[in-house]
Amino acid sequence: MMESDRAERYRTRMQRKKVVIDEAIASADREQGLLLVLTGNGKGKSSSAFGMLARALGHGMRVGVAQFIKGRTDTGEEAFFSKQDNVIWHVLGEGFTWDTQNLERDTETAQRGWTIVQEMLCDPSINLIVLDELTYPLKFGWLDTFTVLNDLKNRSPMQHVVITGRGAPTALYEIADTVTEMVDIKHAFRAGIQAQKGIDL
Amino acid sequence: MMESDRAERYRTRMQRKKVVIDEAIASADREQGLLLVLTGNGKGKSSSAFGMLARALGHGMRVGVAQFIKGRTDTGEEAFFSKQDNVIWHVLGEGFTWDTQNLERDTETAQRGWTIVQEMLCDPSINLIVLDELTYPLKFGWLDTFTVLNDLKNRSPMQHVVITGRGAPTALYEIADTVTEMVDIKHAFRAGIQAQKGIDL
Repeated sequence: MMESDRAERYRTRMQRKKVVIDEAIASADREQGLLLVLTGNGKGKSSSAFGMLARALGHGMRVGVAQFIKGRTDTGEEAFFSKQDNVIWHVLGEGFTWDTQNLERDTETAQRGWTIVQEMLCDPSINLIVLDELTYPLKFGWLDTFTVLNDLKNRSPMQHVVITGRGAPTALYEIADTVTEMVDIKHAFRAGIQAQKGIDL
Repeated sequence: MMESDRAERYRTRMQRKKVVIDEAIASADREQGLLLVLTGNGKGKSSSAFGMLARALGHGMRVGVAQFIKGRTDTGEEAFFSKQDNVIWHVLGEGFTWDTQNLERDTETAQRGWTIVQEMLCDPSINLIVLDELTYPLKFGWLDTFTVLNDLKNRSPMQHVVITGRGAPTALYEIADTVTEMVDIKHAFRAGIQAQKGIDL
C-alpha cells in the first residue's frame, strides 16, 4: 500500500468518527443530577465511584459517601478521601456479619444507615453522593426497595448519585440514567493473588 | 412463614457464603504487581483507574498517570490529583486530532508519550501507574503493540499498572492479571444529557 493511500484512509476514518461524535454532542444539551448504577461481578465498581468523587472534588464540588457493607475504616479510599476538604464519609456497615448472622441486627444497622443517607439526599449543597454496596442491603431485605427508590427519585434535583454493588435490582436499572455492568473476564484472585492495597483496598 | 424459620434460613444462607469466601481467601496468598485492563463501551473505565489511584495514595504509595488521548488539562481528575503529594501526572495526548488527521503527527505524539511511560515502568519507586486510554494508540497503530507488551512485561515486578480504553487488543487480555469489560446497559448521553462535571469530566 502506498504511504499516501494509508494517510488518506486514516484521514477518512478519523473524519467519519468526528461526524458521528459531533452529532451526538450537538444533541446532548441537558444538565441534571444523574443516577448511576455500577453493577456486575467484575472489578471496578467501587473504584469507579471513587474516581468520580475525585473528579467532582477537582471541580470544587462537595461530596458524600455512605459505605453500606464495609465495616473497616482502614481502606485506602477512606484514609485518602476523609482527610480532603468537602468530603463527608460514613462507614455504615459492620461487614457481612458472619459471626452474628442475625437478620434483625443487620436490618437495624442498614436502616440506621439509610436515615443518614436520607439527610444527604435532601441537602442540595452535596453535589455527588456515593452509595457504596447499597445493592446488598436491598438484596438481603435489610432495606425496603420501594422506600429507597422513592427517596432517590425525590432527591435534590441537581444531585448526582452513584450506586455500586453486585446484583442491582431491575427497578434500580429502570430509574437510573446510566447503568454499567462490570463483567469479570479475568480476576487475579482466581490465580491465587490476594487482594492488594491500592487496587482492591 | 414463622419468624424463627426466616431467621434460620438467613443464618444458613449467610453461613454458606462465609464458607465459600473463607476458602477463596485462604487459597489466595500471593502478592505481586498486577496488570489490570479496564475496557468495553460502558462508563467507568477511567474513573475506576482514578479510584485506584486514590486508594493507593491512601496507603502512602507513589503513583504515576499518563493520559494518552486527552489533550485538555481542565478535567476534574487532573485538577484534583495533580495537587496531591506523590502524584506524577502527564497529559500526553492532543485529543483525537480531528483537525490535523495526520497519522505521522499522531504517531510522533504517542511515541514521545511512550518514552515517558518507559521511564516510569523502570522506576520501582512508582507503585501504581495508570495508562489512561492507552488502547487507542494501539488500535490506531500509533504505538507498536509488541513493544508496549514487552515493556509492560519487563516492568518493575511489584508495580501495578492499570490500562483503560475501549477495544483492548487480545494480546493485552492475555498478559493481564485482571480484565473487566464495562458493558454499557444504559447511558445518560443517549437520553440527551451532556457530559457532566464530576461524572464524566
